[in-house]
Amino acid sequence: MNYRMLWRVLSRVLLIEAGLMLVPLAAAAIYGESVLPFLWTILIVIAVAGVLWLLGRGAGGSLHTREGFVSVSLSWIIISLFGALPFVFSGAIPNYIDALFEIISGFTTTGASILTDIESLPRGILFWRSFSHWIGGMGVLVFMMAVLPMDDEHSMHLLRAEVPGPVKGKLLPRMRETARTLYKIYIALTVIETGLLLCGGLPLYDALVTAFGTAGTGGFSVLAESIGGYGSAYVEIVTAVFMLLFGINFNLYYIALIRRSIRGFKSQELYCYLLIIVFATVTIGLNISAQYGGFVQSLRYSFFQVTAIISSTGYATADFNLWPAYSRTLLLMLMLVGACAGSTGGGMKMSRCMIAVKAAGQELHRQLFPRSVNRVTLDGERIGTETIRSTLIYLLLYALLVIGGSLLLSLNGLDLETTVTSVISCLSNIGPGLGLVGPMGSFAVWSQASKLLLCLFMIMGRLEIFPIILMFTPNVWYSSQKRAGHRHGRLHRGE
Amino acid sequence: MNYRMLWRVLSRVLLIEAGLMLVPLAAAAIYGESVLPFLWTILIVIAVAGVLWLLGRGAGGSLHTREGFVSVSLSWIIISLFGALPFVFSGAIPNYIDALFEIISGFTTTGASILTDIESLPRGILFWRSFSHWIGGMGVLVFMMAVLPMDDEHSMHLLRAEVPGPVKGKLLPRMRETARTLYKIYIALTVIETGLLLCGGLPLYDALVTAFGTAGTGGFSVLAESIGGYGSAYVEIVTAVFMLLFGINFNLYYIALIRRSIRGFKSQELYCYLLIIVFATVTIGLNISAQYGGFVQSLRYSFFQVTAIISSTGYATADFNLWPAYSRTLLLMLMLVGACAGSTGGGMKMSRCMIAVKAAGQELHRQLFPRSVNRVTLDGERIGTETIRSTLIYLLLYALLVIGGSLLLSLNGLDLETTVTSVISCLSNIGPGLGLVGPMGSFAVWSQASKLLLCLFMIMGRLEIFPIILMFTPNVWYSSQKRAGHRHGRLHRGE
Repeated sequence: MNYRMLWRVLSRVLLIEAGLMLVPLAAAAIYGESVLPFLWTILIVIAVAGVLWLLGRGAGGSLHTREGFVSVSLSWIIISLFGALPFVFSGAIPNYIDALFEIISGFTTTGASILTDIESLPRGILFWRSFSHWIGGMGVLVFMMAVLPMDDEHSMHLLRAEVPGPVKGKLLPRMRETARTLYKIYIALTVIETGLLLCGGLPLYDALVTAFGTAGTGGFSVLAESIGGYGSAYVEIVTAVFMLLFGINFNLYYIALIRRSIRGFKSQELYCYLLIIVFATVTIGLNISAQYGGFVQSLRYSFFQVTAIISSTGYATADFNLWPAYSRTLLLMLMLVGACAGSTGGGMKMSRCMIAVKAAGQELHRQLFPRSVNRVTLDGERIGTETIRSTLIYLLLYALLVIGGSLLLSLNGLDLETTVTSVISCLSNIGPGLGLVGPMGSFAVWSQASKLLLCLFMIMGRLEIFPIILMFTPNVWYSSQKRAGHRHGRLHRGE
Repeated sequence: MNYRMLWRVLSRVLLIEAGLMLVPLAAAAIYGESVLPFLWTILIVIAVAGVLWLLGRGAGGSLHTREGFVSVSLSWIIISLFGALPFVFSGAIPNYIDALFEIISGFTTTGASILTDIESLPRGILFWRSFSHWIGGMGVLVFMMAVLPMDDEHSMHLLRAEVPGPVKGKLLPRMRETARTLYKIYIALTVIETGLLLCGGLPLYDALVTAFGTAGTGGFSVLAESIGGYGSAYVEIVTAVFMLLFGINFNLYYIALIRRSIRGFKSQELYCYLLIIVFATVTIGLNISAQYGGFVQSLRYSFFQVTAIISSTGYATADFNLWPAYSRTLLLMLMLVGACAGSTGGGMKMSRCMIAVKAAGQELHRQLFPRSVNRVTLDGERIGTETIRSTLIYLLLYALLVIGGSLLLSLNGLDLETTVTSVISCLSNIGPGLGLVGPMGSFAVWSQASKLLLCLFMIMGRLEIFPIILMFTPNVWYSSQKRAGHRHGRLHRGE
């Protein structure tokens, strides 16, 4: 482990966090609220960044996969540890663990909240809460790459650990350029959504926080009734369409931009994503039509909720916890599947599910014709056995985490539905679950230890499991010298 | 597809069913009940077997994997279709779909029941219901191989499709001898359990049906309160120990017998199975101790329920549906894991879960050291990448079936817990689930269409998914000539 390099990355990430925190500070100033919570936090963050900078002086040498995983994991943990401070300093969330849960839920774009009375909070604090979605959506390290000079080889290992999805090849060359283009697309879409929401009559503040929550596929709202609180079909439709758009692989926008052609959107993953949205919207619409006085009215609610869940945003316009069993079960499944790889959305990712299902079809075929060749393809490209294996293992780890997490949370004695959906919702970065953590519920029902566990799950979900689990393996922490010795010892023992 | 061979296998299986039905017929006669329901069924079965025998005259040629899968699938379906008749003819279960559900639940050793008043049924009928567990436990085709002459190559393809577990190599040579030895062990264990239950004061009838349910890891009881209805700690402990024993890989008994040494029981799968039983018994015991006045008392209930669930039997001595969240969640997980491969138990099987977890560990290692070699082992033997892949796909299919099944069942509008656990319980061949289908509940809550779907799931669970899914693929049904032509055509089209 190249520790100096690690300190340098962390120091930079903290400086960026301090810089970004000027935005909510400005918001607080504009609304005549105290800027001290932000000011204090910024000073602390800068001080810690300074110490880390001193520790990392003279950093050099290579940054490998290991350093990439650890840097990204620790970056996310450290920005959360300090990002929670404004909540505590302002008295909005006096308990530090609660504040940590809230900001991790923000950065990881989960949108699960322990708050029970959102509307009473200062506007600057709520702005920070929603802005954290926007920061976390595209990734704080991608942002760092976009704004700070860093050589491409180093960037690659960071990007690999932070950007979601099984296939990352296309983005890798010309890192810094790519990171900047991604952020440009991200900013452009956010600005367009904000503009459209302004046209719908929303005040600038509400338009901005709603757009932040949509862009990051987060789901924090400043209203107790979420987007439903605005009572405007126009606002709901704009938000729903943008949730759908932010759930699409950003590669596709990138390619379409470069080629200046809509043909960039030829993607099986995208087709599958849209198909599932149509299927779910129609069937849930039929299922809930009795509750909303007809199919056409019910479509408004089903389309919003389907895009909100599959994109892993988690906004709500209705208490879907009260919907019939079919709708609730289907929404739960969409939580697992999640959005497209390379989007800001969470879940297992559409392309992973597609690769897994295709591999299963292949295996069934092989039962009959054992000598048949592997022919799993996506967008015409053959998916290698390595990718298939790691995809299957990813899904397995996902399932194991849901199972293990549910078992630990069940010690709280809450009902099974609340327990399991809390875990799935946090791991998939959705926000609401079912039962007590439904869209009108709150994660305040969990014990402090359970909240910390769910924090871990949210970060695991955002960073796609591997970096966080690997952080707990001793192999990662050896210094290069020690590891060489260790390997040497193993050879001697004949392993 | 070699159809003549298929008819011949089906004709033989039906003849064996007719023969086996003489046992409940005798029971009915002994208890002075009408033997007509069985007599009529036997006559019908013999007539159909005769027709199939005529169709299969002159059968020859090879029996391949395809024929193996289809023969086994159709055998299980056909014996269920006729096995349901005594329930209907006797008026015990007048509705044919209900009767079909009950007998499939019997043959597949699930033990899920649509009956709400068990104790009012004739004893001969209840005997048949429990005896079906015993028949299905070891497998009706294994039985056929044990009693009828058949050449080894044919038997292999049948055995492969019927005996559970990822690794079947050891049993394959000398099929008929192996099938006989397996049945001898099975009969010996059943007789010992019956004897021990008689010593505990149970009447012969109750001792026999309890032993049948244990041996097949089925779980039908003749009492409304299941084994708890006997109110005897001795009976409970004997049953629990035998449930544990029938959940162990029969290979181990076989090897121990041949080598005349306890060393045959050196198996990582067995250790893991026992370890999980100890862990679950102790932690559930602690979790429920308040309900049963102390840890020692609660162990009696937790040990019984843990062995009943992990072995996929599904007997009950307590309404575990009323236990705290931790116990219920853990039991649900044991339902998924299931017993050892090669036992009469269901679920995903312990060894599959172990291979998957080990493969996941390997994958995590590979994230750091991409060039590391695959080293997944079980009992010192290296598990090939083919086995790992098919194991992972198996678990994936399991998950997909649970998800798809839950979605379809959710159209009934029952609560999520009942819906999901019904599917898991049927697919894992457990019997009870949670919620409305808990140990004191009944599957009568489901619609007729849902019951048929659950029937399919029970057979899929018993035959380990592949044979049933493959039955629905057109590739399987081509005659050999047509297939050759088809393949030819594909070559021409350049596929």
